[in-house]
Parts: sequence; C-alpha cells; structure tokens
Amino acid sequence: MEKVDYIICGDYVLTMNGKLDTLRKGAVAVQGARIIDVGAAEAILEKYTPVRLIAGEGRAVLPGFINTHTHAPMVFFRGLADDLPLKDWLEKHIWPAESSLLSPDFVCDATALACLEMAKAGVTTYNDMYFFGSSSALSAKAIGIRAFLGAGIVDFPTMSARNAGEYLKNAEVFINDWKGDDLITPCLAPHSAYACSPETLQKVTALAGRLDVLASIHLAETEWEVGESISRHGKRPLEHLEAIGFLNEKVLAAHCIWLEDSEIGVLAERGVGVSHCIESNLKLASGIAPVPHMLRAGVKVTFGTDGAASNNDLSILSDMSTAAKVHKAITKDPTALDSKTALLMATRWGAEVLGAGDSTGSIEKGKLADIITINLQKPHLAPMYDIYSHIVYAAGASDVDTVVVNGKLIIDGRRPVTCDEEGILLKASEWGKKIAAYNSSHPQ
Amino acid sequence: MEKVDYIICGDYVLTMNGKLDTLRKGAVAVQGARIIDVGAAEAILEKYTPVRLIAGEGRAVLPGFINTHTHAPMVFFRGLADDLPLKDWLEKHIWPAESSLLSPDFVCDATALACLEMAKAGVTTYNDMYFFGSSSALSAKAIGIRAFLGAGIVDFPTMSARNAGEYLKNAEVFINDWKGDDLITPCLAPHSAYACSPETLQKVTALAGRLDVLASIHLAETEWEVGESISRHGKRPLEHLEAIGFLNEKVLAAHCIWLEDSEIGVLAERGVGVSHCIESNLKLASGIAPVPHMLRAGVKVTFGTDGAASNNDLSILSDMSTAAKVHKAITKDPTALDSKTALLMATRWGAEVLGAGDSTGSIEKGKLADIITINLQKPHLAPMYDIYSHIVYAAGASDVDTVVVNGKLIIDGRRPVTCDEEGILLKASEWGKKIAAYNSSHPQ
Repeated sequence: MEKVDYIICGDYVLTMNGKLDTLRKGAVAVQGARIIDVGAAEAILEKYTPVRLIAGEGRAVLPGFINTHTHAPMVFFRGLADDLPLKDWLEKHIWPAESSLLSPDFVCDATALACLEMAKAGVTTYNDMYFFGSSSALSAKAIGIRAFLGAGIVDFPTMSARNAGEYLKNAEVFINDWKGDDLITPCLAPHSAYACSPETLQKVTALAGRLDVLASIHLAETEWEVGESISRHGKRPLEHLEAIGFLNEKVLAAHCIWLEDSEIGVLAERGVGVSHCIESNLKLASGIAPVPHMLRAGVKVTFGTDGAASNNDLSILSDMSTAAKVHKAITKDPTALDSKTALLMATRWGAEVLGAGDSTGSIEKGKLADIITINLQKPHLAPMYDIYSHIVYAAGASDVDTVVVNGKLIIDGRRPVTCDEEGILLKASEWGKKIAAYNSSHPQ
Repeated sequence: MEKVDYIICGDYVLTMNGKLDTLRKGAVAVQGARIIDVGAAEAILEKYTPVRLIAGEGRAVLPGFINTHTHAPMVFFRGLADDLPLKDWLEKHIWPAESSLLSPDFVCDATALACLEMAKAGVTTYNDMYFFGSSSALSAKAIGIRAFLGAGIVDFPTMSARNAGEYLKNAEVFINDWKGDDLITPCLAPHSAYACSPETLQKVTALAGRLDVLASIHLAETEWEVGESISRHGKRPLEHLEAIGFLNEKVLAAHCIWLEDSEIGVLAERGVGVSHCIESNLKLASGIAPVPHMLRAGVKVTFGTDGAASNNDLSILSDMSTAAKVHKAITKDPTALDSKTALLMATRWGAEVLGAGDSTGSIEKGKLADIITINLQKPHLAPMYDIYSHIVYAAGASDVDTVVVNGKLIIDGRRPVTCDEEGILLKASEWGKKIAAYNSSHPQ
C-alpha cells in the first residue's frame, strides 16, 4: 500500500470537475501539495495508507471556495459605519480612518483576522485589492491560505505611495519579490477607471503583459461611476476600458452592475472574468448585477465578498446563497441561478478567472489539494435530498469542518491549526479601539 | 440576597424596550417564567443569588427572535425540489408528497426537527400555519419553544379534514383544547383568499372574534394571486379581504408583496400585522415586498422564514440580514432598513403582531423570560463597533449560544437541553428516505 499524507473521506464528494461528478462514499488521497487520487472510499482506503485519515461520516467533501474580490484588511472596519449613503460612508468614515491609520502593521494584523475568518468559512483562495501586499502575503502564508494579492494602484497619494508612477514601481518590485511562491500570486489591482487615468491604466496593461499577471479592477459598480465616465471620457466605463485596450482574458472585473447588453457582449468577447459581490452591492445600495444575462452571454461570473466593511462577512457560502435567491426574484424566474451553477461559480470558475483553473478549483487528480469538508449532521441540514441544494441554500460558514490548502491541514474540526485565534482576536480588539477613537474624534 | 433561578450576563444587553436601551456589562434576573430585574451586571449580582449563573464574557444578551410565519412541518421537504417554477414545485413535488404522507406522526417528528433548528438559531417564538396542530403542540412543548399554532383552513380536502366546515370545527376543538397553555397559543390560519371562499373567511372572522384568537393568512404573495382575485372577485386580494370585513388588528398577513399604495394604507388603517418572508419570496421568485414603504405608512412589519422547503432554513437572523440588505438595493437607499429597525422587527414587533407584545419580545421586568445570548468571540464578529450592526449583518444562527424560553434553559452553550438531537436527526433521515422514495415514484 502506498503511503500518503491524507485521505479525506465523505458521504459525498463533489468534485466540481467538468462532468460535475458526485461520488457517494468517496475519498480523496493527498500527497504533498497535490491530489493524487479520487474515487470510491473503499478503493482509496485499500490502495493507500494515510498518515492522517480525515473521516467522512456525515460530511461532504468539496473544493474550497474561491473569493475572487475582497479587500481583506478592511475587515478592521467591519460595522464601523453602516446604513449610510456610500459617499458619507467612504468620505466621512472609511477613507479618513484608512488615510490616518493604514500601515504595514495594520495590514498584517487585519489580514490575519480576515484569513482566519475566510479559512473557517471554507475559503481556500482569495483575490485581494489593497496596499502593502508583502504584509498581506506574510499573514496569508502564516495562516496557510492561497492568496492572489493585487497591488492597489490609484492616481492620488495614500500611505503606500505618492503617485501612479510610484504605485507601479512598487507593484513591480512586489510582483518580482513574490512570483513563484507556493501560496502567494502577486498581481495588479488598478482601482477603477475613475481613480486611474487612461495613461495609468495603459501602463498597467503593459506591465501586466510584461510580467504575465492578472489585473483586477472595479467596474460599473455605481450609477455615479457611469455618469462620471460619460462626462470625463464621453463613454460608459466599460466602453472606455475597451477603447483604451484594457480588456483581455487576464482582467478580472469586480461588480459589473451597470452594463448595457452590448457591454455584456464585450465582456464575453474579451474573455474578462467577473466577480459578483452581491451582498456588498445590496448593502451599499449600488444595484444588482445582471448575472443570469452575463451567464447566458458566456461571461464567467464568480463570487467575491468585497471587503467586510460592506458585506459584513467574508463567507462565500453566504454570498452564493444570497445571489442564488436574489436573481430568481429579479428575473421572476426560479430557475435563473440554480444550485449547481452557483457552486461552480464559487469553486472551479473562481479558479479559472484567476488564471488558476489548471491547478485548483476542483477535486481532480494532479490538482493542488485545496479541499474542505462540510458537516452535514446538523438540524438545519436534515433531511437530505440534494447535496448541492443543502450547500447553496442551507449551509453556513460554521458548517465548514475541515480545511486543507496546498495539502496542509489549516482547520481541523473547526479548530485553527496554524494560528492562535485568541491572539488574533485580541489584536483585532486593540486595533478596533484605535479605529473607534479616531472615528469619533475625526470631524464628520 | 434574593434567590433567583438564573442570572444571564452579557457585555451587551439589548433590551429592545421602547427606548432601545442597550446596557454595557448588563444582566437579567429570571425567576420562574419571568424576568424580575434588568440592570448593570454588578448591581444585579449584588442583589440576587442565582441557582445558575449564565456568564456573559464576550456575549450579547437579547430577546429571542420571533418567527411570525412558517410551516414548521415542511422542514421535511427542505431541498426536495429547488430551482423550479412555483407551480411545478407545489403541484409536482410538495402537494403530492403532502397528500400522500401527511399524518400526525409526520407533523410530530417534523415539528421536533423544526423546533430544534429554530431553538439553535435563537428563535424563541414561532407562528405556524399547518395541520394536526396538537401534534405540533406536543413537539414544540417537548423542545420548550413558544408556539402560536394556526389551524390550517382551506376549502378542499386534505389528510386532516374534508371541507371547510370540518376544518373550522376541528380548529375550534383544537383552540379550546390548548387555550391557556403556558407555551402554546392556538389560533386560526385560513390559507389565503384563493384557497378559502368569502363565506369560509367570514366564518373564520366570526370564530376568531368569538374565541379571541389571531388569524394568519397568506396575502398578495404572487402576481398570479392578484390576477386570480380580480377575475374571481373583481378586486385585488387585499381589497377583497377588506370588502368582506376580514381585516382587523388580530389578523397577521404573510408576504404582502403585490400591494398598491392605497392597499398599504388599508393595512395601516386596519392595524393588520405583516410577516415579511424575504428569503422564501426571493427563492420562489414571488417578488419583493415594499417593506420600507409599509414601515413609513406605519404598518408593523415583522419577519417570517416561511417553510424550510422554500427558504431553506428557519433562521430569522438570516432573513433579517437578507432583508436589511435587499431593501437598500431595491430602493437605492442605504438607509432604507437600518439595523435597529431590523432587530425591532425580529423581536418586539414580532411579539406585538402576534398579540403577545405585553408578555414577550423585549427584555423588560415582568415579561416572560424568552432570552438568548450570542457568542461574539468569533473572527467574523471582530472588531466591535456597533452591536446592532454585528447581529444584523454579521452574526449567524451558529453564533447563538444559550436560549431560555419561558424561564427554562433549552439550549446551553449550543447543546440542546430538552431533547435528543441525534434521535431527532435519525427520525428525519428515516422520513427523508420515505419522502424521497415517494417523490421519485410519483409520476411527474
């Protein structure tokens, strides 16, 4: 019998592979960072001896969730200022606090909290847009979560750089520093067409091409953005990005709410991935993206939580459930976004829009072992008719039991393995006090 | 020092009283079924000696959630048939299964599962519409949850009665059997204006008046219902109910989606309570109720989960969060439904529309002790700026730690005290097999 690091068993194994194979009483064998076999539990247990058997009674095994758009360090602003118009929220609370308190230490401690929350919610990969990426990288690596870290780029000064040229230069250094890491994929994150000039965006395109990295951008999030783009460029935001040659298959656009039919066609044609951030979009009253329409047009739509300040959590399970329900009501069609499609968006497609479709996002031989189990032995998950339905419509973050990323166990029966939860919460509480004090002292 | 059964402490006590008093480091003293004191923890602990101290470090204490509309036994159909048009869902799956398998035993076992799920989600009171109410009552009492049980009334035969006269007769017997019980409040539940003739509804009104009980009804849930009402009665559903004298302050109307402005005025004028079932309405693509508009008009809007077959859970926390977000996007106003209003709808107002505002729904001296604690020591609830925001936007059912109903501890640190969880899950699994077998054998 071959020795392996882990065998992970489950009453159900949802492979999320091309055929959406679902195994009853299945198992996954993990050796090093990779999945080396998937099959019937009985056969796998006969073939391999694991160092650790992760038993599967009452469990579903699935690929970890992919959070394709967030600002992880903003977790420290969760609940700081809710139920406010977007402009007040940003200009009177979030930006002042950020501009005064942001630092590598802030990003390091906040990212630890965000990664712990995400890991416990079954998120094994996330795509970030923020500043001080090396601090994020160190925290994400310490927890053991897979992170695509987009170096934020804007035209105005922040605590991290003074102008577009400096952001771009820093971004290149950051990318060269982290390229090739087993968990961290550095990339670019120009904020938006309203925060970056056409010249800046064209430099981003050139740099992304030269370094072969992903570029994430906010796109068509608010009606204000559309008006602003028309008045500045004479074009809607997406038309403007198309006109300056920004759109290609290595671009991931977050939000994509205010799109006309022809613009959806452009997204599909250019192969741009979309991160749908339904809970943030609802909470900030930004609008509701035309997801069923985008899916029909062949656009690859995935899920992002956005930052915890506007969600207010980092659980993809929750966004997936909300999205699958909301789009039914908006289209008046209960078949608009079914549970299998929703789960694909949350797993394999998420990996694909990050350019990591070959290595993660599904449970297949040879892929990296980014795997979670969900505990089904709960009153709110009984009885059982359809495992996809339960995961999309009934399961919550707290049902995630065990999490393996890159072949390493990071959550074991809900207990964090790689970090000190109490210490992270204590630091969060200390930062919270500083932020609250600043927020109440700042003239609003 | 006075002896009391419980002192429940918390870093925050959200009383949800008329002034929305929120105590830091507060405590509640419980003797028998009632709250006998509320105040600063230090003062309460000096004044009383508890048989059991429920410690409060990292906990919020609040009144239990009120689920104002559900069909608890339908929990056995959770996930049986999702992502289908309403007509197929009901006519090809739910109704055939109900008409073939429904029995007092089914209702007893299903209600046990539903009550356990609700208790663990912090729901201390629910309002049911179903059949075989005495079976529901016994299960709800065994778990120890407060239940308003509406005897279902329709014009067509089901397993529980043959015609309207028989439903009404059974309902009267049921109400007389259970009136005065400390946990069960029997009431009436005519299904809807399309399933009950005007004559049946007028008999319900007379009986409700004579026995002084609540009458719950589905109202304006779908566009189909509006068309049906106009073609049958020449009036929209609410106008029709108003014309036959059905509407008064002892009526609780579920859904209320398809309302015109004038109809919202009638609801307010008649003092009809509303149960808003956002997750069910989204999932069945029924539409989105004009909740901010109803609130502005002075209608008391509360939250219902509806049955688990269309939600797919029985957590008010989840519906509250979804509603607070969705209405912001629909009205394009991030202030549309703020966290304090949402929590009022989920607690005190819920009790008020059930006619139980004097006895439950808030933490006040003299009220029944229906109290929950929420564990705030979790990564997804850090840091802390605003306790209302965290409960509405970030907390989930699994954060509910301890639940007291009628002065009795029923969930203790997430462990059920009054029932055998494993036994309930086992029975659910057995019923699930029967239902699945029937569903796949039944011609669809």
